[in-house]
Amino acid sequence: MTGSEIAVRPIPWLDASGPEAEVVVSSRARLARNLQDVPFPHRADSLQSERVFERVVAAVQTTPAFRDSTVFDFELLPERDRSLLVERRLATPRLAKGSGARGVVVSRDESVAVLVNEEDHVRIQSIVPGLNLPSALAAAVDVDRALEGELEFAADRRLGYRTACPTNVGTGLRLSVQVHLPLLVWIGEVKRVHRAVAEMGMVLRGWLGEGSRAQGDLYQLSNQRTLGVTEEECAKLLERVVRRSLELQRDARDRILATDGRRARLEDRLARSWAILRSARLLSDEEAAACLSDVWSARVLGVGPGPTLEALRRLLVGLQPAHLAYATEGDEPLDGVRARRLREFFAEFPEPGTDLAHLRG
Amino acid sequence: MTGSEIAVRPIPWLDASGPEAEVVVSSRARLARNLQDVPFPHRADSLQSERVFERVVAAVQTTPAFRDSTVFDFELLPERDRSLLVERRLATPRLAKGSGARGVVVSRDESVAVLVNEEDHVRIQSIVPGLNLPSALAAAVDVDRALEGELEFAADRRLGYRTACPTNVGTGLRLSVQVHLPLLVWIGEVKRVHRAVAEMGMVLRGWLGEGSRAQGDLYQLSNQRTLGVTEEECAKLLERVVRRSLELQRDARDRILATDGRRARLEDRLARSWAILRSARLLSDEEAAACLSDVWSARVLGVGPGPTLEALRRLLVGLQPAHLAYATEGDEPLDGVRARRLREFFAEFPEPGTDLAHLRG
Repeated sequence: MTGSEIAVRPIPWLDASGPEAEVVVSSRARLARNLQDVPFPHRADSLQSERVFERVVAAVQTTPAFRDSTVFDFELLPERDRSLLVERRLATPRLAKGSGARGVVVSRDESVAVLVNEEDHVRIQSIVPGLNLPSALAAAVDVDRALEGELEFAADRRLGYRTACPTNVGTGLRLSVQVHLPLLVWIGEVKRVHRAVAEMGMVLRGWLGEGSRAQGDLYQLSNQRTLGVTEEECAKLLERVVRRSLELQRDARDRILATDGRRARLEDRLARSWAILRSARLLSDEEAAACLSDVWSARVLGVGPGPTLEALRRLLVGLQPAHLAYATEGDEPLDGVRARRLREFFAEFPEPGTDLAHLRG
Repeated sequence: MTGSEIAVRPIPWLDASGPEAEVVVSSRARLARNLQDVPFPHRADSLQSERVFERVVAAVQTTPAFRDSTVFDFELLPERDRSLLVERRLATPRLAKGSGARGVVVSRDESVAVLVNEEDHVRIQSIVPGLNLPSALAAAVDVDRALEGELEFAADRRLGYRTACPTNVGTGLRLSVQVHLPLLVWIGEVKRVHRAVAEMGMVLRGWLGEGSRAQGDLYQLSNQRTLGVTEEECAKLLERVVRRSLELQRDARDRILATDGRRARLEDRLARSWAILRSARLLSDEEAAACLSDVWSARVLGVGPGPTLEALRRLLVGLQPAHLAYATEGDEPLDGVRARRLREFFAEFPEPGTDLAHLRG
């Protein structure tokens, strides 16, 4: 499968029909596993890594969820295609930039993937739209169970699964939820969420996880604890944390709408973002994401009409550098292509009013 | 005359029909004079200052240029009206913020004014539209000659007129030209103009002269030397400096248009400024001036339809805080009023294209 074919495939987790879809983009479960009697990836020699890659890929391909799946061998895959998979959340920057035998097996609909020789030998991930951690967890667990018939995973009777990094020992599970928190960013209270989340043993990060920025006001909420807690308990706790941050955002919304000065500044910002999307000739990935985030906020606040949430999310993903490069002919600078596409897209919509006064409760 | 009456009067130097009107807003001549046998304003006591104010105002009112003139006594004038006169360039911040007997006599059409007890007892100023220093100089000299029949000015046979600050001794003349240098600002070469200007004994300052910022990319070019040079020589030299800076700007224009990346960035900026003027809900004085400056640049570059240069300049003056406050009822924040006025104004014009490629020579 070529990069240009991947770039145009639909992404299942962008579907905006999931629970709490206005604010929660997707829920993700990731299970870290390692093969018994083989050193962790960072200690394995190249022959050992190659063997791991072959064995895991073969095992994954036998499982039902990976019928008609695609294997991406990162030693052979061009850098541009690796970036494309990162933008689609099917690979991590670490896997894309690494070296040696490594890659990812992606199910036909991209809802599940197995990363091989990332930090651990095996990382099973499942992403579903909206706030739906049990569903993401169940899909990952299904793959895990199917693989356990084919591979022997390193485990300790007392501690649980062994992982390359001690923070994953135990369940090897990282659950995460991608949330859109524009009003908390705008009112300067992301720190409040950070605190509330940390108190409940969870962590708030940029939208692509560890080390990434919060582009487009998108954040990732995830668990820290993997030891002495069951997968189901972990999912319940994270869901509580997500609901708490949604409450904090609703609270921020009410306070913004209740204050004339704040409301006027928000109206100004929404109007400007709309105008920039319709008019700019050059737009960086980051600025485009910020403006699209504002249009999204306006939709959620009830200012309309405008594009659907799903269309906005598709733009957020599709206008990232690797995706855009595949959609571009010649050597036109990407910032120019991005701006033109957004101008064309937004030209179809009438300019919305941005008066928020009527929303005051 | 009340502030609200002043605020709506036409300003003669905004007329965009003068020479080089696309880039040169106005030319100004200012003559510093002091009464014999009275200490300079900063040394005079309050009784002396009052006497000076009365004598000068009486003398000015007898001259033909000041038939039907208005006397603004700054001891009685509210702060808001003093700011209004500063925004119209009929007073200086120093005169507005000062204390004691002081003020300004303004001719019926606002083309000439006499400031009393500013840094010197008498400052005669004349402003004309476009690049026309001889005309500005002639008008100021006429007033000076007429006043010399009524008042005795302190002068030294060898040095010339005595002034409070030694930099004005001699002719007491400061000639200045208000120029719009957006492309030089944009390409980061204002320093080049600073240097070229300094080499010719002139100085480049923000648009309202000493200590002011270059709001809306407007600068003031003026002479430094007042000793051992005639008024006419000074005018000729300053005109040469102005023409040199216009050349530098034309040169900057050609280089911008010749480079794809630079041209695209300029197109982007012009498109964004237009969009902000049409859409923003809050606009500071400074940002409005910057956006209006871009629309002005677009007009001069040949993009467009759009508002006339004169209309843009009237907006630049009329949307300053004191002017805007007079045009506003209630306590609506000025940034909101300014944005609404600009939205209403620009709604009448179709969105211009901003493609500059066809302008390349």
